[in-house]
Amino acid sequence: MQRTEIAAYGEFGLIKHLTEKFKNENPSTIKGVGDDAAVLDYQNKKVLVTTDLLLEGIHFDLVYAPLMHLGYKAAVVNFSDIYAMNGQPKQITVSIGVSKRFSVEDLDQFYAGIQLACEKYGVDLIGGDTSASLTGLAISITCIGEGEEGKIVYRDGAKSTDLICVTGDLGSAYMGLQLLEREKIVFSGGAEVQPDFEGKDYILKRQLKPEARQDIVKLLHEKGIVPTAMMDISDGLSSELMHICSQSKVGCRIYEDKIPINYQAAVMAEELNMNIVTAALNGGEDYELLFTVSLEDYDKIVAVEGIAIVGHTTKPELGLQLVGREGEEIELRAQGWNSLS
Amino acid sequence: MQRTEIAAYGEFGLIKHLTEKFKNENPSTIKGVGDDAAVLDYQNKKVLVTTDLLLEGIHFDLVYAPLMHLGYKAAVVNFSDIYAMNGQPKQITVSIGVSKRFSVEDLDQFYAGIQLACEKYGVDLIGGDTSASLTGLAISITCIGEGEEGKIVYRDGAKSTDLICVTGDLGSAYMGLQLLEREKIVFSGGAEVQPDFEGKDYILKRQLKPEARQDIVKLLHEKGIVPTAMMDISDGLSSELMHICSQSKVGCRIYEDKIPINYQAAVMAEELNMNIVTAALNGGEDYELLFTVSLEDYDKIVAVEGIAIVGHTTKPELGLQLVGREGEEIELRAQGWNSLS
Repeated sequence: MQRTEIAAYGEFGLIKHLTEKFKNENPSTIKGVGDDAAVLDYQNKKVLVTTDLLLEGIHFDLVYAPLMHLGYKAAVVNFSDIYAMNGQPKQITVSIGVSKRFSVEDLDQFYAGIQLACEKYGVDLIGGDTSASLTGLAISITCIGEGEEGKIVYRDGAKSTDLICVTGDLGSAYMGLQLLEREKIVFSGGAEVQPDFEGKDYILKRQLKPEARQDIVKLLHEKGIVPTAMMDISDGLSSELMHICSQSKVGCRIYEDKIPINYQAAVMAEELNMNIVTAALNGGEDYELLFTVSLEDYDKIVAVEGIAIVGHTTKPELGLQLVGREGEEIELRAQGWNSLS
Repeated sequence: MQRTEIAAYGEFGLIKHLTEKFKNENPSTIKGVGDDAAVLDYQNKKVLVTTDLLLEGIHFDLVYAPLMHLGYKAAVVNFSDIYAMNGQPKQITVSIGVSKRFSVEDLDQFYAGIQLACEKYGVDLIGGDTSASLTGLAISITCIGEGEEGKIVYRDGAKSTDLICVTGDLGSAYMGLQLLEREKIVFSGGAEVQPDFEGKDYILKRQLKPEARQDIVKLLHEKGIVPTAMMDISDGLSSELMHICSQSKVGCRIYEDKIPINYQAAVMAEELNMNIVTAALNGGEDYELLFTVSLEDYDKIVAVEGIAIVGHTTKPELGLQLVGREGEEIELRAQGWNSLS
């Protein structure tokens, strides 16, 4: 494979090379890449801003995350934060710090992933920064989105008698990660056996190429449902529930048998002697939505496919409870993934 | 000095600790730190977005850059990009990746610098990300600002008979860096001699604690001057002039004896056997403004203190010329600082 050194381009040449394939599509993008700052026109819409810093060896492992998937995922996880506000992502900036280990072709792969995500979700690339790095790859993405007055959903709006809903299934991304870790030796070495991924495509995809729930935000809008509180599940259901409950000053009761689990993820957990419910509660990176809706919306919400009601909020003094399959009550603890510990 | 390990706080505790001292002051900040995304209301104003990624060992050296100064500078250089659009910075997000070498007290210093800059320039901290890093310190800042319809100044608006103006003086930040590099041995070692900074306070400040030209943007507004093109000088006058000329499709003629040089910077250059004009043309990090104005604004612009007219634009076929003190013509080349080479 061809290898072009990054130094051959220079900073401005490189930015031009990496960004020229992107086309800006949103009317709110007045000026994208190429000046001191991008210019946006949000008219009467609110502006949503979220940002993520991803560092090699902490947030991703290039041994098993192909650069194109990494670019896709890095963009999508930021879109997910905007959907979690009940908004629509519209623009991103992408900054990268790269060591000499990376070639221009590597960065092309990474930006191809970014571009794929941008096209799928209707987001424009409007800026960024390109720099050398002494070690590894550093990625910083900021996403800007639009929200409508009165429709933006925060974490602190849950009332004490709301329904607690989650989208999709939980724990799959974590089980995908466990599988990749197990097969990593095969990946990295010159081993003759191929890694065994048969029948595991779903959990791998959940880990390596997650999607953000644009579809759910659209469905909620169509059904006339505005959640009382919402966030995306990036650190595990337990951790996110604690955020919503503490910010909304409510308690909660969720039911183990209502937590949506994918079959492949359950089989993988079985194989690895792990508990899939623990993975759903504490595993990260599912990028599903956790939200609360008023009891009055019950009829509307059960009619929406892909949403599970996992429990309800309570008065704050009742705490955060998980009700097990036998009816036993377990206090929820956040053991969410924490890159600092 | 006390040393608290970052792991003692956990991610959310740390973010709370670092950001709780910040007060949001701008009416456009609806919701800052604490949700999936910040929420801003720009009403009928345009939204300006700029972002920077700063990596230890590439963009800064903690041997001589105190963390508080580094925080201040990291914020200010982003504000500078918004002023360079003739806008006003209003919000920033700050993401950091930190290795175990850093304590909570170190980060307190860094955020104290950010806070000082935010208070001075009227900017709100609205979000960010905190992560571990395997090596050193990574800083990513995104700044959001407001611009007025018809008043935003791009790089591509210069006409072929405009005046070329720069603010303040050039080359000082670069000479400050040279001084710091010379004295670095004293800094890092347990040497008994103290570094010799006597009479060099100005160039040191220009390197370690630069300011953005909020004052000039305000003055231009008061005098009713809207530049035809503008950018900030972060990579040296030559490099920035090339951007404006190529994007505006004009040439330029600037005069060596018009380039504003500070006395301390000139003395330092003399001491180090360097050419101060070369430093002004190719040294980075001055964060002054380079802009062009219509000839009709000549009377207005000469009346503004702190602005030097260094030349004028020409037809593109005349190229980019520096006229020396003896009248000799030298073609301008960009040898601007490039972290990728």
